[in-house]
Amino acid sequence: MTYCVGMMLDRGLVFMSDTRTNAGLDNISTFRKMKIFENPGERVLTLMSAGNLATTQAVISLLEERTKAPDDRDPSLMAAPSMFQAARLVADVLREVIEAHAQTGQQADSAFNATMMLGGQIYGGPPRMFLIYPEGNFIESGEDTPFFQIGEIKYGRPILVRAYRPDMSFEKALRLLLVSFDSTLKANLTVGAPFDYHVYETDSLKTGKTGRIELDDPYFQTVSRDWGTALTDALDRLPTYEF
Amino acid sequence: MTYCVGMMLDRGLVFMSDTRTNAGLDNISTFRKMKIFENPGERVLTLMSAGNLATTQAVISLLEERTKAPDDRDPSLMAAPSMFQAARLVADVLREVIEAHAQTGQQADSAFNATMMLGGQIYGGPPRMFLIYPEGNFIESGEDTPFFQIGEIKYGRPILVRAYRPDMSFEKALRLLLVSFDSTLKANLTVGAPFDYHVYETDSLKTGKTGRIELDDPYFQTVSRDWGTALTDALDRLPTYEF
Repeated sequence: MTYCVGMMLDRGLVFMSDTRTNAGLDNISTFRKMKIFENPGERVLTLMSAGNLATTQAVISLLEERTKAPDDRDPSLMAAPSMFQAARLVADVLREVIEAHAQTGQQADSAFNATMMLGGQIYGGPPRMFLIYPEGNFIESGEDTPFFQIGEIKYGRPILVRAYRPDMSFEKALRLLLVSFDSTLKANLTVGAPFDYHVYETDSLKTGKTGRIELDDPYFQTVSRDWGTALTDALDRLPTYEF
Repeated sequence: MTYCVGMMLDRGLVFMSDTRTNAGLDNISTFRKMKIFENPGERVLTLMSAGNLATTQAVISLLEERTKAPDDRDPSLMAAPSMFQAARLVADVLREVIEAHAQTGQQADSAFNATMMLGGQIYGGPPRMFLIYPEGNFIESGEDTPFFQIGEIKYGRPILVRAYRPDMSFEKALRLLLVSFDSTLKANLTVGAPFDYHVYETDSLKTGKTGRIELDDPYFQTVSRDWGTALTDALDRLPTYEF
C-alpha cells in the first residue's frame, strides 16, 4: 500500500508521499513515489503514484525517456501545452502499461493496477491537480474537492476533512499532512516513513521546497507525540454523554 | 457496510452499532444490528453483526429459536456454560449459515460472509468479548486489544487508538464512541445513524443502559459540531513545521 496526498491551497500546491512498498508482509522496501518534472520558468509537474510498483516505475521511466530523447519528445510531459494535456499523457501511458502486462496473460495476486496524481503549473495557465485512474481517465480537483488522497486513504482522512483550509500557510499544511500521515502510519504496516514532500508556490514555475521527513525527525516525533495528547484534551473539552 | 465497536473497560463493557444496511447505493434501509440475550442474575450477552444481512439475520433467528423452544435448547446461548462456549456456539451457527448459502451454488455480488462480535458475562466468570470470523473461528479481547471494531473500521480507528483508556467512565466511553462514529458517518455513506448502544456493568448480570441516538439528537449534534472545532484547535496548538 501507499499513502499520498496532494492539496490545492490559495498559495500553491502541497504534495506528500510515503516511501514504503511491500510485496507480501515480509518483503518491505523503501521507494520514492514522488517525481518532479521541471523546466524552470516554464513548468513544474509533480507526479505521485500508488499501486503496483512495477507498473508505476514503468510509467515514470517511459515518461522520463520521452522527456530526454529529443527524437521521441512528442508527446512528452515537457512539451504538453497544458496541464490537462499532461494529465492525458500520463493517463495514456498508465493505461498502456497496465494493458501490456494484462495482455501477457500473467496473473498477479494484486492486479497490475496503479493510481496516480499529477499536479503542477505550466506557464500561461493556473496550477491544476488531477487524480488519474488505472482505466486511463481522470478527475480534477476543485473548490469542492481541493485535495486528493491515493493509497491507504481512510485513516488519515477525517483530520484532512476537518482541518483543511484553502488559505492555510504551507507550514500549517505540512503540519496537517504529518498528522494525517502519522494516523495512517500507526494503523497500517504498509505505509511507512520517510515521507517526501514538495511545496509548490503558485506562479513560481520552479521546484519549491522539497524534503524528506524521517521517522526520527525531531519535529515529526513532536507532532506524533503531542497529537495524542492534543486529541484526548480536545475530547475532554466536549461535554460528556448523560444517560 | 456497518460500523460496530465493542469496548472492554475496567467497569464493564460498552457496545455501539450503526443501523444502516444497503444493497447497492440506492437501496438503503435501517436495521438493528445489536441483539441482547438476557437471563437476569445469570447472564447477559450482546451480539453485534456486520456483513450480509440475510446471513446475520438467519444466525440471530437460529440462536433465538434455540433459546425459546425448550426441546431444542441444547446447545443454546442461554445454556452455554461459559462465554467461551457461547462464542463457539455463535461461531458454529455463523459458519453453518454461510456454508448453507454457499452450497446452493448461488452467487452474490458480495459474499454471504459476516463477522460478529459477542460480549457479556455469565455468572461465575468475568466479562469477556469475542470477535467471530465468518470461518467460524474467533479471537478474544484482552489488555493489549481491549476493543474490537467490525465493518467500516478505518475512519473511526485513530481516535479510538489514541483516546481509549480502560479506566474511563461509561459517559466518556459513549462520548468517544460517538466521535468515532461521527468520523465514520461523515466519510462513508454506508454507515448511518441512528446508533444503538448498550452499557453493561461488570457483575450486574442484567441488561444495562441501552438507547438509540438519532442523527438529530442534540448531544450528538453538539459533539459532531464541536469536535471539528476542537480538532482544528488541537492542531493549532502543535508547533508549525519550519522549512
